[in-house]
Amino acid sequence: MNSIIKEGKYFLKCICIFLPTIFIFSKNVSASSFTSPNKVLEIKFYLDEEGRPYYDFKAEGFEIIKKARLGINLFNQTNLDSGFVIDTILFGEVNQLWANVWGEERNVKDHHNSMTVVLRKNISGLNKLLHIEFRLYNDGLGFRYLFPKNGNHGFFIVTDELTEFIFNEDLECWWMPGDFDSNEYPYTKSKLSQINAITIGEETKLDFRHLINDSLIQTPTLLRNSHGAFMAIHEAALRHYPAMFLQIDRSKSKIQTRLVPNSLGHCAYLQDGDQTPWRVVLYSRQAKDLLTNRVILNLNDPSIIPNSDFIKPGKYIGIWWEMHIGKSSWNYWNSNKNEAVANHGANTKNVLRHIDFAAKHGFPYVLVEGWNKGWEEWYNVWKESIFSFTESYPDFDLKLISDYAKSKNVQLIMHHETSGAVTDYERKLDSSIAQMHQYDYPGIKGGYVGKIIPRGEHHDGQWMVDHYERLAYKMAQNNLTLNLHESVRPTGLHRTYPNWWTNEAARGNEFNAWSKGNPPEHETILPFTRLLGGPMDYTPGIFQIKMNHYGPNKKEQVHTTLAKQLALYVTMFSPLQMAADLIENYEKMPDPFQFIKAVPTDWDSTLILDAFPGDFIYMVRKAKNSEEWFLGAITDEEERILEFEPSFLIPNSKYNIIIYRDGDDAHWESNPMSYKIEKSTIRSKEKIKIRLAPGGGCAIHFAPVAQKRKGRIN
Amino acid sequence: MNSIIKEGKYFLKCICIFLPTIFIFSKNVSASSFTSPNKVLEIKFYLDEEGRPYYDFKAEGFEIIKKARLGINLFNQTNLDSGFVIDTILFGEVNQLWANVWGEERNVKDHHNSMTVVLRKNISGLNKLLHIEFRLYNDGLGFRYLFPKNGNHGFFIVTDELTEFIFNEDLECWWMPGDFDSNEYPYTKSKLSQINAITIGEETKLDFRHLINDSLIQTPTLLRNSHGAFMAIHEAALRHYPAMFLQIDRSKSKIQTRLVPNSLGHCAYLQDGDQTPWRVVLYSRQAKDLLTNRVILNLNDPSIIPNSDFIKPGKYIGIWWEMHIGKSSWNYWNSNKNEAVANHGANTKNVLRHIDFAAKHGFPYVLVEGWNKGWEEWYNVWKESIFSFTESYPDFDLKLISDYAKSKNVQLIMHHETSGAVTDYERKLDSSIAQMHQYDYPGIKGGYVGKIIPRGEHHDGQWMVDHYERLAYKMAQNNLTLNLHESVRPTGLHRTYPNWWTNEAARGNEFNAWSKGNPPEHETILPFTRLLGGPMDYTPGIFQIKMNHYGPNKKEQVHTTLAKQLALYVTMFSPLQMAADLIENYEKMPDPFQFIKAVPTDWDSTLILDAFPGDFIYMVRKAKNSEEWFLGAITDEEERILEFEPSFLIPNSKYNIIIYRDGDDAHWESNPMSYKIEKSTIRSKEKIKIRLAPGGGCAIHFAPVAQKRKGRIN
Repeated sequence: MNSIIKEGKYFLKCICIFLPTIFIFSKNVSASSFTSPNKVLEIKFYLDEEGRPYYDFKAEGFEIIKKARLGINLFNQTNLDSGFVIDTILFGEVNQLWANVWGEERNVKDHHNSMTVVLRKNISGLNKLLHIEFRLYNDGLGFRYLFPKNGNHGFFIVTDELTEFIFNEDLECWWMPGDFDSNEYPYTKSKLSQINAITIGEETKLDFRHLINDSLIQTPTLLRNSHGAFMAIHEAALRHYPAMFLQIDRSKSKIQTRLVPNSLGHCAYLQDGDQTPWRVVLYSRQAKDLLTNRVILNLNDPSIIPNSDFIKPGKYIGIWWEMHIGKSSWNYWNSNKNEAVANHGANTKNVLRHIDFAAKHGFPYVLVEGWNKGWEEWYNVWKESIFSFTESYPDFDLKLISDYAKSKNVQLIMHHETSGAVTDYERKLDSSIAQMHQYDYPGIKGGYVGKIIPRGEHHDGQWMVDHYERLAYKMAQNNLTLNLHESVRPTGLHRTYPNWWTNEAARGNEFNAWSKGNPPEHETILPFTRLLGGPMDYTPGIFQIKMNHYGPNKKEQVHTTLAKQLALYVTMFSPLQMAADLIENYEKMPDPFQFIKAVPTDWDSTLILDAFPGDFIYMVRKAKNSEEWFLGAITDEEERILEFEPSFLIPNSKYNIIIYRDGDDAHWESNPMSYKIEKSTIRSKEKIKIRLAPGGGCAIHFAPVAQKRKGRIN
Repeated sequence: MNSIIKEGKYFLKCICIFLPTIFIFSKNVSASSFTSPNKVLEIKFYLDEEGRPYYDFKAEGFEIIKKARLGINLFNQTNLDSGFVIDTILFGEVNQLWANVWGEERNVKDHHNSMTVVLRKNISGLNKLLHIEFRLYNDGLGFRYLFPKNGNHGFFIVTDELTEFIFNEDLECWWMPGDFDSNEYPYTKSKLSQINAITIGEETKLDFRHLINDSLIQTPTLLRNSHGAFMAIHEAALRHYPAMFLQIDRSKSKIQTRLVPNSLGHCAYLQDGDQTPWRVVLYSRQAKDLLTNRVILNLNDPSIIPNSDFIKPGKYIGIWWEMHIGKSSWNYWNSNKNEAVANHGANTKNVLRHIDFAAKHGFPYVLVEGWNKGWEEWYNVWKESIFSFTESYPDFDLKLISDYAKSKNVQLIMHHETSGAVTDYERKLDSSIAQMHQYDYPGIKGGYVGKIIPRGEHHDGQWMVDHYERLAYKMAQNNLTLNLHESVRPTGLHRTYPNWWTNEAARGNEFNAWSKGNPPEHETILPFTRLLGGPMDYTPGIFQIKMNHYGPNKKEQVHTTLAKQLALYVTMFSPLQMAADLIENYEKMPDPFQFIKAVPTDWDSTLILDAFPGDFIYMVRKAKNSEEWFLGAITDEEERILEFEPSFLIPNSKYNIIIYRDGDDAHWESNPMSYKIEKSTIRSKEKIKIRLAPGGGCAIHFAPVAQKRKGRIN
């Protein structure tokens, strides 16, 4: 069976076709196995003598995970950890293609086998039911717990999830400290046994750290075994549940799930009919294949949006980087609120200048931060009501600006910084949305800087996970998009909510403007970790790499070459991409800016030429509805030679290419702005060889040479 | 100085006149005293050698409170408990009358002296300032802490308030268990040393008890010393702060303030410019004078509502008691949500019947509970989103009902039960208010049954206190009134928000329908305790006293006589009063119903004939803008003789009176529905003598006999 399902408009059809499950009922067994469609992966589920559930996970015949526990602990109720019998086992298979609303490829293949174990446990005369559903793809495992409608649990509180991942060796690991409120850390590579999360976490000096212990880490986590195979642990479809963290037993290569609690020590408030997110282990012999792994996307539900025409991938510029470099401010008043500051960024004149620039260079969107009242006293105050989401500062003429933008066919992206005061934001949302409709805003960039209100909740806890989804749903109902910063890291929910099209939820480019920044390897790790969950608004495109341009005392710099900033538009997927630098810098360097103008944000297909986490990524993507291809190649602090045949091009066709590469003397630290642009033509069998400078990169634009139509008799 | 200030429209004028303070600056002192205008009460403030602040409170020359500490503890900052010097002391006097929007008397006298001590403390080179402001009225003390704008505290978190009340003897006390989520307990009378809050609290079997310890009690707390003088401890103007509870040191007659914390152990999130509520000790030689004590009202700010014409005191009937007695249900669907129940109360036909009744008998308002979707699964589920606040059940025709009500000149009171899911309620409030405007609803009855969401917050904590005020403010902006149930007990804020005109926040009449109920003394204690803070929606007027009328298995009954139910309309002040019984019961007993129809809910003046907490209350009130008087007399389980001369009547004028009294054989338990109605005439010097049955009462309506105008030449 193989059918293409168009998501969005026809999602009902999709649901019908989605479950061609073959039911097999098994009774009186205590173990059961199944494999992936290509037989490479295998799951065995079993109960021990006390009725405790376990699973084994094999790949290519090797034991990857052995005797890992499953189960859920409850508050004030008997735990769902043991005493089970298997009631029924159901098997199924799905093989289909479905169409992305937008994405890294036009159609996504979903081929998996499944096994659902119905567990039963008698507690005080009630048959309590717990389902565990496994899916095996050829390149990964997903499983989740379901509390069926007839499960007899009623309303209940989860205090703990027992899910384990027990490996047979001390794996190599790319990890980030476990923090219930931030994902904005660099990655560290070490053996599982060498993880030191607090030490690394505290070096980072984030203002809103909430580190838990030295061996708690975040997902997505990348792992590599001694056979060289790669695995990544993450979750899919995080809804109405807290984020999953990983507690490492450093002496045993044992990983235990840890859920984000609220201040009462409760993790999830559920009822019969609910389920957990999918626990996911991706598997791949080669690192590069992880970059096109679609297991997490496949484990999410189809789009809920009947008509997704309002979601228009594209690029934006903004009044944003200028605040990060200290040129202007978000706040209009000084801290005493008695006079205006000299350099408020979101003033009408500056906004109109940006609208002109966007119109001239074909950017559909302009972001303006600092337009609304409240920025005088917003940071680190943990206060209930700070921002207005409808009132602009006196020097921001909302109507004039909106009318002007409309006349230029440009749209303003609404900015909603909540400062973590989410209760306040939610109560003001209806009035803000009404205003957005009035002034034709297409969507929001939202922010959650600071400690959350409701106090005691975390950015990654159930209440906030519910909030993000509530927001995505409400925005979808209003034909609005959202791009969230400081929210929980994504888990493929952009399939279900394609209007929630990108997130920060990682350490973005702005850290380079005012901190010790992101190491040159940072962007070579993100696609293997954070981006497995979904697109990232990394805000690339910084041309003025060294901050001392803005003041002699500024020592900071972006830790890449200029050419690498261009390559990020390909390697760091997002349907909404920022051209983050000051527009005056683009005006000064119009040549490399041509690539940013040309590169799309939505793709027909994606090919990884080669990649290794922490070292390099070389990839090409075919633009949506076009024969143009774009290459992005980036390296860490090492110099490398990129050499390949563009065999993805149509054979024997000639393509114009524009190569944006590092200058011969370029180096991320000493000479980052040295670049070279070369134009020529190429065919699919002709080799390309380019040097990437240390911390450098390369971007190439391939466009078919326009052919004269040959005369032909029909 | 003596001027009448009209609140509401002219409140700006009010503020100007309100502070004719005489400033006296004192330096280099460590103690200071002042007295009430009549010199009866005296406060002495002083610092000890460690700079700890204390106060003494004397009344009539006797020491009432001796060496009681003052101060505030902070989270992660130096406590504001010691190390102070006195920077400045300011004294002042106010003597004025101000006009109520509605109330127990038309004009309220505010005559007090004040002393504000400016304390200074040097912490890490910063001068931190704490103001303590005392006011002495002739019948009470109020004091509060202020953190001035220049206080150098920034944003800070209060973990504890050190305020003490240290008495010199083991006082008699009328108390209620300390519960951060409920005020719905009966009162207990004991010595301070004999308080046993957990034991008493658990006997009550409330579903949502949150009892803390055996010696924590709630305010308002009534106290009596061995001289027979009465005191009541409460607070005034509870805003942006948690409610104050009292921790009793049973061995020492020492009372320590305890604030309601959130789940993090934080009590209040404040910043420079904020202040605490007023800590209040009312003082009175005679019990009855407490019932006309206006200290708490005076300590609150004037009305924020410029035009309060939309606030129209009155009475309401409702579809409500029928649910409590089991005749009908709130929910429309059965618990499986697959079919409608047989007896949904809020159906169109039943609502129209109530509108007809209200129109016929002159009730301006009809409350309908169970009109909106969500009642199938609302109780004790601690779930985020339960109710719709705009969608009605299929059998409730919102438009038809609203049109019909309008045609009959009756208004429907909107019902908003939140089930404690306050975050959800707040995000839906704008759409609900829009609908209320569309259908001409005048205000809401709100409810907070169940555990609060944000989880970890309490009904009486700062977040919820902020919520109630936010709601009152938003409703005021929309010309809407509110009547909150299960909210924090009031503290005189109805002066500032006269649209927030009544609350439950105590054990109401409905407990008699399905629990062991309220003891006969209950209503004689409430005006000395709970009602000191503000009006109560007690829902009196139950004529069908015994619940076995509705089913042979029902053993419950209201613990009063029928006549006492009438008297409660006078003794239990509220500008919005319910006639709570089924309308068919009123139709069956039209004679006593005449009193409910006649009694107003807004008054020119109030006189207490005599009263003693837990025993009896006899009071008369003069109707607003009228020469009619109404008497309410209630007794506990003891029979009593009410005997008085109506000297409040205009001398020599003749009045028609209607006496609604207990039948000669009436008794609250055995024969509660026996009543007698007697009509006659009276003049001010003629004595009235009436028997109150055990658990009984009496209501009298005095109306001047219409006089023929004597011919007169002008």
